Amino acid sequence: MTLFVGLDLGGTQVRAVVAEPAPSGRPRILGDATRATPTTGRPDDVIAELAAGARAALESAGRSLHDVAAVGCAAPGPLDPHRGIVHVAPNIPGFERVPLAESLASLLDGTPVFLDRDTVIAAIAEGMVGAAHGERDYVYVTVSTGVGGAIVSGGRMLRGATNTAGEIGHWPVGLEGPRCGCGSFGCVESFAGGRNLAQQFGSRDAGDVFRAARGGDERAKALVARSEAALAALAIGLVNGLNPSVIVVGGGITEHEPQHVLEPMRRGIRERALRVPAAVAQVVPAALGPDVGMVGAVLSAQERVAGRGSWFA
Amino acid sequence: MTLFVGLDLGGTQVRAVVAEPAPSGRPRILGDATRATPTTGRPDDVIAELAAGARAALESAGRSLHDVAAVGCAAPGPLDPHRGIVHVAPNIPGFERVPLAESLASLLDGTPVFLDRDTVIAAIAEGMVGAAHGERDYVYVTVSTGVGGAIVSGGRMLRGATNTAGEIGHWPVGLEGPRCGCGSFGCVESFAGGRNLAQQFGSRDAGDVFRAARGGDERAKALVARSEAALAALAIGLVNGLNPSVIVVGGGITEHEPQHVLEPMRRGIRERALRVPAAVAQVVPAALGPDVGMVGAVLSAQERVAGRGSWFA
Repeated sequence: MTLFVGLDLGGTQVRAVVAEPAPSGRPRILGDATRATPTTGRPDDVIAELAAGARAALESAGRSLHDVAAVGCAAPGPLDPHRGIVHVAPNIPGFERVPLAESLASLLDGTPVFLDRDTVIAAIAEGMVGAAHGERDYVYVTVSTGVGGAIVSGGRMLRGATNTAGEIGHWPVGLEGPRCGCGSFGCVESFAGGRNLAQQFGSRDAGDVFRAARGGDERAKALVARSEAALAALAIGLVNGLNPSVIVVGGGITEHEPQHVLEPMRRGIRERALRVPAAVAQVVPAALGPDVGMVGAVLSAQERVAGRGSWFA
Repeated sequence: MTLFVGLDLGGTQVRAVVAEPAPSGRPRILGDATRATPTTGRPDDVIAELAAGARAALESAGRSLHDVAAVGCAAPGPLDPHRGIVHVAPNIPGFERVPLAESLASLLDGTPVFLDRDTVIAAIAEGMVGAAHGERDYVYVTVSTGVGGAIVSGGRMLRGATNTAGEIGHWPVGLEGPRCGCGSFGCVESFAGGRNLAQQFGSRDAGDVFRAARGGDERAKALVARSEAALAALAIGLVNGLNPSVIVVGGGITEHEPQHVLEPMRRGIRERALRVPAAVAQVVPAALGPDVGMVGAVLSAQERVAGRGSWFA
């Protein structure tokens, strides 16, 4: 009963780890498993795969569910972390109004399952053992296929009225612009999200756009410049609106193209944010990389079981 | 010792009320006074005028400082509400690094003075006895000479690392645009703030711009349309980013031109915000009008003295 399972439900992969709490704070990973996210359109198939992933990770660690105190699960939002229900996961066909925590618990012999949004889970992890360690006012931003985030203010996770707070990728930063996947326009994500960038350029992924820009392609350069301007606007807005001491930036695009993400955000704050909040705001890369979802899910479950989860509950 | 003084320090006027707590929650005003804000560039002159305003309001109520439990004071930010220091009040010449609470208390025979930002004070008032009564997740927005606000999430005032959180008027909503008073561009205030609107049109105040737009002036119509687009973007961003149940909108422009403020915000949310947070977000006019600063200052002092001020402290 001393281990925790961390699950990360994504649009293409289901990932699982088994971990034990460590004195350093960062859980020690004992086993892991990765499986493809079913695209059958049946939520039960996805939940079964999550359960299978958990069991496979346990097997790879030579342990069983008897050793597990709780399961943490990161999933795309919007969702209800208290009741463990996913309202809708736009990247997983048919995944609507799914009582994920309860269904998964019943497939895992009743082991308690704690569900939370992937970006919230990432913010918990970065705050507890990552780049925002010890901070009480920070924002986690992911710049990847999409742009998302989570906000911690005064030592508490912002939840909002129906638990969707932190969806800062859909904060409009342009008065006009191309249509975003969310149906609006002008969102940060419409300019800086990988899927939108690739679509606007007509390529397979955002990496092609950055490569073409480096090769001198004018259209790619313009898209990259506009993405940088949107990320700068987001950073300025976060600093002026929320006065964080740290903005932690993760996600695939940040990892591969930091100079097109972190640098424009820092420059924007330096040159254009209000003086008092700008003086304390640092933009730093995420510390936990692509495993943040699983590590955060473990930490989140660990904290809830220990009764220390009130700051993000 | 049952009365409270509420002070509102503005760029042109110092206003004061004396009030007593009432069972309805909304304090009963017993006397008031209004004085011009000194423009001598000496903070001491401004503080002396605040003290004189407090005494004049007491005199008009036939009461004295002996009857006063505490003084609340709303002031432009950025400021430190815990230490009672104004960092800088951009609209009051020379008002920088002023220990306002302490200096004012000493001019008022040691009566405790509680200082807070004008928009935070307004949010406290709207939450306690106004348009956000009973709400735990709401945003107060003022659209006036400038655009500002304050954020309440999970029943707590967002303060940020150095107490400037809520300055949402300087959230960029345009990737380009005219220079804002803050030195940046693209801010909500650069498009929708009264001073900027008037300046861009070349008139004395924003009222002229709205009048000219009604009269068919094309340049005025374009400025008003852009202001509406910026306010819609702000509303969408607030809903997506913070998931409030209510956005309370006050300020002079909102009072005089509600159809150019409230309506575009509502339409923006309805047409472009994410579905789950949009479903619960209402945009409502402020309930307390131009007296919100003084009423809120009274309420804020009242709550702090009663030990109930932790939600906004």
